[in-house]
Amino acid sequence: MPQEENELRWDPLLKRGVIIAKNRAKRPTDFIQKKAVAEEGVCFFCPGNEHLTPPEIARVEASPPYRFLPAPPDVASGRTPATKGGWLLRVFPNKFNATSLDFPAAYGTHEIIVETPDHASTMSELPAEHIARVIDVYCERTNALRENKKIRYVSIFKNEGREAGASLRHTHTQLISQDVVPPAVDEEISANKAFAEKHGSCYFCAARRLEADRIVFEDEHFFAFCPFASRFHFETWFVAKRHAGQLTDLTDEERFSLARALKTILSRLDAMLNRPPYNFHLHTAPLAGGPSYHFHLELTPRLAVWAGYEFCTGLYINSLPPEEAARALRE
Amino acid sequence: MPQEENELRWDPLLKRGVIIAKNRAKRPTDFIQKKAVAEEGVCFFCPGNEHLTPPEIARVEASPPYRFLPAPPDVASGRTPATKGGWLLRVFPNKFNATSLDFPAAYGTHEIIVETPDHASTMSELPAEHIARVIDVYCERTNALRENKKIRYVSIFKNEGREAGASLRHTHTQLISQDVVPPAVDEEISANKAFAEKHGSCYFCAARRLEADRIVFEDEHFFAFCPFASRFHFETWFVAKRHAGQLTDLTDEERFSLARALKTILSRLDAMLNRPPYNFHLHTAPLAGGPSYHFHLELTPRLAVWAGYEFCTGLYINSLPPEEAARALRE
Repeated sequence: MPQEENELRWDPLLKRGVIIAKNRAKRPTDFIQKKAVAEEGVCFFCPGNEHLTPPEIARVEASPPYRFLPAPPDVASGRTPATKGGWLLRVFPNKFNATSLDFPAAYGTHEIIVETPDHASTMSELPAEHIARVIDVYCERTNALRENKKIRYVSIFKNEGREAGASLRHTHTQLISQDVVPPAVDEEISANKAFAEKHGSCYFCAARRLEADRIVFEDEHFFAFCPFASRFHFETWFVAKRHAGQLTDLTDEERFSLARALKTILSRLDAMLNRPPYNFHLHTAPLAGGPSYHFHLELTPRLAVWAGYEFCTGLYINSLPPEEAARALRE
Repeated sequence: MPQEENELRWDPLLKRGVIIAKNRAKRPTDFIQKKAVAEEGVCFFCPGNEHLTPPEIARVEASPPYRFLPAPPDVASGRTPATKGGWLLRVFPNKFNATSLDFPAAYGTHEIIVETPDHASTMSELPAEHIARVIDVYCERTNALRENKKIRYVSIFKNEGREAGASLRHTHTQLISQDVVPPAVDEEISANKAFAEKHGSCYFCAARRLEADRIVFEDEHFFAFCPFASRFHFETWFVAKRHAGQLTDLTDEERFSLARALKTILSRLDAMLNRPPYNFHLHTAPLAGGPSYHFHLELTPRLAVWAGYEFCTGLYINSLPPEEAARALRE
């Protein structure tokens, strides 16, 4: 049976789009509510189960010098190359992909980055050096996708925990590349431009001062804070001190600062809240660059549920003042 | 101890606001994840427990002629008036209110409308005549709030089921009035105006034709469809055939059509999916009227979780084509 093509549809009114994922379409009866949650069986992301994933895109060696190894071009046979010595990180296509190079109306790629061979580790438990390798892989894949001139944007995000949308426990990041610049990115860039025209400085350049009361991490290259208008409990934004639009514009040192900041804040969250569900997502400029922008990463724990009010107003209710959240994260 | 005032904060970049609800602020340790879910104890919304809620605002009599009875102004003593004969519907302030007439920076009211004395009924199980009375109460309360000239918008929404943000099972609607027009409302109105300038017709007036393939209900006054760019599985919009901006502009007959449409679709959803969690939310013009708008109600079942991708892109992934959803809802 031929696979149906996905389709990106635009809302007729709002700057809001939806990928209709016909390729993983379910039957209506598949949504019948079950009260019991099934236990996880075999983990597709664990070592030894590489043959259960689509053909590998790349891996990082398991031992020094931890080289990033794209899959050899001659093993496009559908079989994963048998790299000796295992792997530290592994990249392969998402089996349940939202985008594909074969979908003209939902063009792009959808990749999984497994962050460690260890099934039970959370990202917070990985050493900062290891998290830096994860971020390096984000850059390697972004730069590889940049070679495809139809790709205009790369979204990179992590879903941790069931309430945050993760279907598998084994820690991983997702990457979706597309031939469109997402509307939220356009909106942020325009809003930041308007802010700079009004205030003489990009918002993120000014944030160290504006958000001073809510800073939770700072070193030479990065700072993190719980934003003034946090939509989520313990929401934390990680901002490069230098005005650079894309993750790939950052130096090795700057990226290591981001890794250390993530390690610090995620460890505190996990210890304080017993591994809460969360998302994080990179806010980066389009591949082509364009209007001035400022790279940052947003961490959004999922400790409450958006409901009817949020959907009809574009307003949010947050029952933990970010000043309180920042105080707890600093302690 | 004086109650802390809530505060509506605006994001410095985006048209996005957050009520910082200091009045129900929790301690960071309150968010520690618990694996077991506590069973519900006493229900604050059940008959006999009226004294557990804040003083009543209004009720609908339990028997014909089912009069809408605002609480007598002289029982502002904090005690609920002892109306003889019980009640069919009951309105009182939300004990965990997001807005208050006492919060200058988060001004408004936050009300609960208990839809039936029966603890176990879902809205779909109420007769259409009863649902029409619920909608009448929405109108009565909107018109009463209109008397306060500082109130500019009334948001009315229902959260059903834990995954949809409901903390209590007993079926109820919430109403939040505010001194601001929410950004999503402004955005919809502007987008609808632009649509009309381009296409010669308001989107909602054109929707009967544009969404013809996905219609799931129709009578003389209302129609319902699964929108082309549905963000949610089984998302369904209910649109008045007449171009009217506010719920309170509709006639009794039109409102009865809306009740019948809701009864029809909610019954099918509950039967097909074993009472799925959902939100519905009214999309209505600001109280002052203003630019032309077209009242509708959006029903958004919660069968998937928005995750990192949605938050960084403003794009959504929906694994059930709305054409399939519409087919299932028609059958």
